[in-house]
Amino acid sequence: MVHNFCQGFQAGAIAAGIKKHNALDLGLIYSNHPAAVSGVFTRNQIQAAPVMLARRRIQAGLCQAIIVNSGNANCCTGETGLRDAAAMAAQTAQALGISEELVLTASTGVIGAPLPIDNITGSIANLAKQLDPNGFDDVARAIMTTDTVPKLISKSISINGESVTITGMAKGAGMIRPDMATLLCFVFTDIDATAKQLKPCLVKAVDDSFNRITIDGDTSTNDTVLILANGMSGVALDTPQSLNAFQTALNDLLVDLAKQIVQDGEGATKLIEIRVKGASSNADARRIADTVAHSNLVKTACFGEDANWGRILAAAGRSGAAIKPDCTDIYFDHVKLVEGGVGCGNRSEQEAHMVLQKPVFSITIDLNIGNGRAAMYTCDFSIDYVKINAEYRS
Amino acid sequence: MVHNFCQGFQAGAIAAGIKKHNALDLGLIYSNHPAAVSGVFTRNQIQAAPVMLARRRIQAGLCQAIIVNSGNANCCTGETGLRDAAAMAAQTAQALGISEELVLTASTGVIGAPLPIDNITGSIANLAKQLDPNGFDDVARAIMTTDTVPKLISKSISINGESVTITGMAKGAGMIRPDMATLLCFVFTDIDATAKQLKPCLVKAVDDSFNRITIDGDTSTNDTVLILANGMSGVALDTPQSLNAFQTALNDLLVDLAKQIVQDGEGATKLIEIRVKGASSNADARRIADTVAHSNLVKTACFGEDANWGRILAAAGRSGAAIKPDCTDIYFDHVKLVEGGVGCGNRSEQEAHMVLQKPVFSITIDLNIGNGRAAMYTCDFSIDYVKINAEYRS
Repeated sequence: MVHNFCQGFQAGAIAAGIKKHNALDLGLIYSNHPAAVSGVFTRNQIQAAPVMLARRRIQAGLCQAIIVNSGNANCCTGETGLRDAAAMAAQTAQALGISEELVLTASTGVIGAPLPIDNITGSIANLAKQLDPNGFDDVARAIMTTDTVPKLISKSISINGESVTITGMAKGAGMIRPDMATLLCFVFTDIDATAKQLKPCLVKAVDDSFNRITIDGDTSTNDTVLILANGMSGVALDTPQSLNAFQTALNDLLVDLAKQIVQDGEGATKLIEIRVKGASSNADARRIADTVAHSNLVKTACFGEDANWGRILAAAGRSGAAIKPDCTDIYFDHVKLVEGGVGCGNRSEQEAHMVLQKPVFSITIDLNIGNGRAAMYTCDFSIDYVKINAEYRS
Repeated sequence: MVHNFCQGFQAGAIAAGIKKHNALDLGLIYSNHPAAVSGVFTRNQIQAAPVMLARRRIQAGLCQAIIVNSGNANCCTGETGLRDAAAMAAQTAQALGISEELVLTASTGVIGAPLPIDNITGSIANLAKQLDPNGFDDVARAIMTTDTVPKLISKSISINGESVTITGMAKGAGMIRPDMATLLCFVFTDIDATAKQLKPCLVKAVDDSFNRITIDGDTSTNDTVLILANGMSGVALDTPQSLNAFQTALNDLLVDLAKQIVQDGEGATKLIEIRVKGASSNADARRIADTVAHSNLVKTACFGEDANWGRILAAAGRSGAAIKPDCTDIYFDHVKLVEGGVGCGNRSEQEAHMVLQKPVFSITIDLNIGNGRAAMYTCDFSIDYVKINAEYRS
């Protein structure tokens, strides 16, 4: 259990009957005062109705409540979907006695099925009564789809001798790739900041976290990251020192959540950091990290705990980045497996096999031709991934 | 069994002990006379030793023999690998009494393991004695790795009243994506053509076939397509009529082999044609076809026989091509499942589910915004794919 949640926010969740088995599926987060808000959303051209609504309302820079459901993405649902998203928000505003424009929406789940809107609107009055300063854990559970564990972190930092708290929750598990690689993430802080100040901080933190992970290479239609700042700490985001401290803390928090998402990827048994160095540029390094991190053959070999470095080299070779095969070295954690494009022999393969048995490890590709660097997180590709996704809607 | 092989060629295979269980793993194809030759090779920057050798020798435009092994790719094997590829060719030339420069090499199998060269060179004299005009089926078997069936086609066409025969074999099964999407393919014809005439025909046929298929999105280090023409039909490739007839026949043959490769993809249970039409350009259509054909979520849904069209729309939406969600229709064979970006309801989903139970079907995405078209072949993504690739080297 996480404690020490950000002051001035309350949260709660309820089982509205969208998911099966009476599971929590509708969550509400409420700020005691209107908070500054910023967000980033999916780059997919297919966008869910709640994304369209949130994207529009966020322009005003203020938010007091987020209503979120799992079990249904409310995507590819046409005009009805847009009306349903608006109805969710309207009912929430009414229950809380606030303006509709201060309510943002998010949904996650199956695409293309009509939202069971009556279940949702009929539950919101009761849901509003559940609001509690310690209710974040329930909401983190309510937004899960194929996630196996809730992802919730809260941390406090000191800025100019004052304590600032950041609380974040996320859900992921499938449809994850670097173009805004999460389904949903909500962050709450008591720092005093404007929407305009929050935006670049959020974009940078997302680029260093959710844009560096992959599970299956697909990009969701519902990806949403929101940050709300209510100013209750009295610490303003207005000096280089406070900005720097806040940015570092926000990055750490989102990187933590991003790693938790990969580790809990559909069917995943291992969290793997792909590190590329010695590339001719950072862009080239990123291209290689991205290609290796997405290679089904590399990912299945990791699942099989097979140090099949040939597949890593082959993926690097098709990435489009400059490589010199004869110069390339590969390491599994600290075990050198390939030197100058050729395997280091049976003993190093055996040592690498030991590394592969660990739940968390790194694969380093050193191109030895420049100073370009990049890193990405990926997971292995298991039989359970296929089972989960073959049977998702049944 | 295929009969009616191209005249003037002989083939044979042997178990040289590279693969386990005494399986055929070394093949030889011999032209009674030096034949005109052309080829296309992997675009991966990591290239196997036999590819480097074949790529160099093919420049001269003549070939009389191909020596090919499975069970080992002879890739990422450094200087030793280059010597081994040359030794395979030298031993073959000696056994056949021809110039080394007329022998091309190909290998397929595990990357990074040293080639068991003594097994190979020690078997070539016996292998040369197996040569037989009906030996193609044995070679088609000898080049298999995770393929479950050999892929061999022979067809005759009439050009100016004369019969011209084309025989082709291929192996695939994994590491297949559109940048020269096959491991190995060898084509033999008795048409009379120069290397220079053959090249554009081959490039066009490959673009329409092997560059339109995907199994797992990885690109091999050993991809090789070779075509040999020995002129024995007496029909010259020197008129628009003969060129047109030959190009059509060659395209058909390679498309047939390409479809067989997808159908026999690792763990595949279904062959799926992804058709895109109504795009703003052919390039955009291809971008969408490619993204949908590679989506693990679409492929696992097909394995689960789940008409999860939301994943298809989501993949199209992240492809980078222009789409208007409200205009987009989706069909499974002739069943319309989505109209204007919204599902057509339960009845059409049930009908689509029937389509998904077939071993071969098409998914059509009509964007309704232009005249751009493209098609690709893909397969479903099964539990067996993961099993095969997790355990490949053990």
